[in-house]
Amino acid sequence: MKNRQWRLARFAEGMPQATDWVLSEAEMPEAGPGQLLVRALYLDVAPYMRGRISPRQNYAAGVRPGDVMVGGGIGEVVQSNAENFRPGDVVVSDFSFGWQEFAAVPATAVRCIRPEIAPLPYWLDAFGLNGLTAYFALFETGNMKAGETVAVSAAAGSVGQIAGQLARLAGCRTVGFTSSEEKAAWCKSSGYDEVINYRLAGDLEETVRFVCPGGVDLFIDNTAGVIHDAVMTNLAEHARVVMVGTASLADKFEQADIGHRFLRQILVKRAIVRGFLFLDHQTRHEAARSRLVQWYEDGVLRSKFDILEGIENMPEAFLRLLTSKNLGKQLVRVGVEG
Amino acid sequence: MKNRQWRLARFAEGMPQATDWVLSEAEMPEAGPGQLLVRALYLDVAPYMRGRISPRQNYAAGVRPGDVMVGGGIGEVVQSNAENFRPGDVVVSDFSFGWQEFAAVPATAVRCIRPEIAPLPYWLDAFGLNGLTAYFALFETGNMKAGETVAVSAAAGSVGQIAGQLARLAGCRTVGFTSSEEKAAWCKSSGYDEVINYRLAGDLEETVRFVCPGGVDLFIDNTAGVIHDAVMTNLAEHARVVMVGTASLADKFEQADIGHRFLRQILVKRAIVRGFLFLDHQTRHEAARSRLVQWYEDGVLRSKFDILEGIENMPEAFLRLLTSKNLGKQLVRVGVEG
Repeated sequence: MKNRQWRLARFAEGMPQATDWVLSEAEMPEAGPGQLLVRALYLDVAPYMRGRISPRQNYAAGVRPGDVMVGGGIGEVVQSNAENFRPGDVVVSDFSFGWQEFAAVPATAVRCIRPEIAPLPYWLDAFGLNGLTAYFALFETGNMKAGETVAVSAAAGSVGQIAGQLARLAGCRTVGFTSSEEKAAWCKSSGYDEVINYRLAGDLEETVRFVCPGGVDLFIDNTAGVIHDAVMTNLAEHARVVMVGTASLADKFEQADIGHRFLRQILVKRAIVRGFLFLDHQTRHEAARSRLVQWYEDGVLRSKFDILEGIENMPEAFLRLLTSKNLGKQLVRVGVEG
Repeated sequence: MKNRQWRLARFAEGMPQATDWVLSEAEMPEAGPGQLLVRALYLDVAPYMRGRISPRQNYAAGVRPGDVMVGGGIGEVVQSNAENFRPGDVVVSDFSFGWQEFAAVPATAVRCIRPEIAPLPYWLDAFGLNGLTAYFALFETGNMKAGETVAVSAAAGSVGQIAGQLARLAGCRTVGFTSSEEKAAWCKSSGYDEVINYRLAGDLEETVRFVCPGGVDLFIDNTAGVIHDAVMTNLAEHARVVMVGTASLADKFEQADIGHRFLRQILVKRAIVRGFLFLDHQTRHEAARSRLVQWYEDGVLRSKFDILEGIENMPEAFLRLLTSKNLGKQLVRVGVEG
């Protein structure tokens, strides 16, 4: 039996192409001491992966041509060389799986799932990277306070759809930006009081001023680009802007980003613009996860998923994400339970 | 006897012109209840004044054409309608004097000076707006820690010359940016370990990389512009950038600032860019001032001054400042003590 896996063929330039990866077959991996052999059920595609296939400096080591593409996943333990894990356990890893059917992973890099609480994809999404990112970006980095106006770019995206719900739960007025009427409808039906389709808005700066007459207190920015620009000219005093992602720059990742700068606005409003990284909050991940699971059990936190079938669709799924074609958190189902 | 005063003739467009103000004569002001009539000895010119003569939104109410130009000053009490003040007292006001020979000011807007400790200009500078700005920007907004690399733009400027000394006192390595060899020499002889003359540096980004191989931990930015750009590509992880001023934008104050944006750098380095305003720290001004006075008395804090003579030179002094021609904190001496 072979292990199918996607390896990076070359660094991406601008918008990645499907041919930047090759699907190859490798020998089955073996679980070393303290490791688990895991068979993939769901594999993740996420915006941060764009940064990993660039030769530019980033916060994490990059994937080099020839390497298996990085990524998290959900899988079933086939073989365990670690206490506390048995064959048949379903586990999730935020980053340490890779785009492949089988992975040998350190037991310390995975956690067990409780499928009786929520469907498997939730453990990679609302109870994983995306839920924790929304949680810490809002409550810690963003210092969210009840009654504030919270704006979120890519509001229908994996982080955005959770951020809207959490901000509303915290007593904030939520304003989401999205790219289609279909996504806008989903945002409206979940956490967003107001939704702006930035592709239809005309003068986006004016639109934000109209929707947020008191200014934006907290901006969770997943995109940079035109939405960033429109919010930066509408900041409330002491506003916080949390840079979670720069999705709109995905097709010019290796170029300088030239455009309006907002240093006067930052100064005059005494605003804070800061970068966010999930891993910086690692010591409190479990505490936050408990809250996210509780909100799910209370019925007030839901994710929408967009799931492709088959490992052969990994690059397509990733490109759907980068071009905003997905409706809901994008995943690929690569195996069947049991 | 008349009161000579400078009134704004028109809002400035781009770089202000001397003809944007007119020197006029008014009746002597009268001190109302709780007020003092003060005769000016020194009048302030400062970069923040550029923002006050723009029709654009700012953090403080602007000066409108016909108004007396705002500004702080040092003066002698001529008449007092307030307890705790007597004729002959020398007082300082950070903002509530105006470009004029006599002012009726609320006693609550001034504080008494102790000339036996330090020359009068210090009370408007190192013990006033500039010293407190450097202090709070470094120790509070910037969260300065011993051993860090601290970069300061306009290092020979009113805030910069104090920031270098305070950062060095706090055990940091200090890197200053300035615009002439004469200013660089002054910076080297006061608080700066390294000084970069940005007009001679060639590739400024490379120069910063060479001088700060571990990156910049804290950047006190008084200018925006090319120095900002060069530092933003050389941030250390968890760097803090405190926007104190945007002096380099003075000649395009009403235009959008277009250029390189650094949202990827902010994200990857988890940096913080935030705006600073002196008045936000008002409740702790006195505590900080005590420390600044103490450092002066200990002989470890000194300012250089650049003083013009005569109220007729107010616009010239302000334009010297905006065009970087001053060497030391710019003031105008408009009266003689006693």
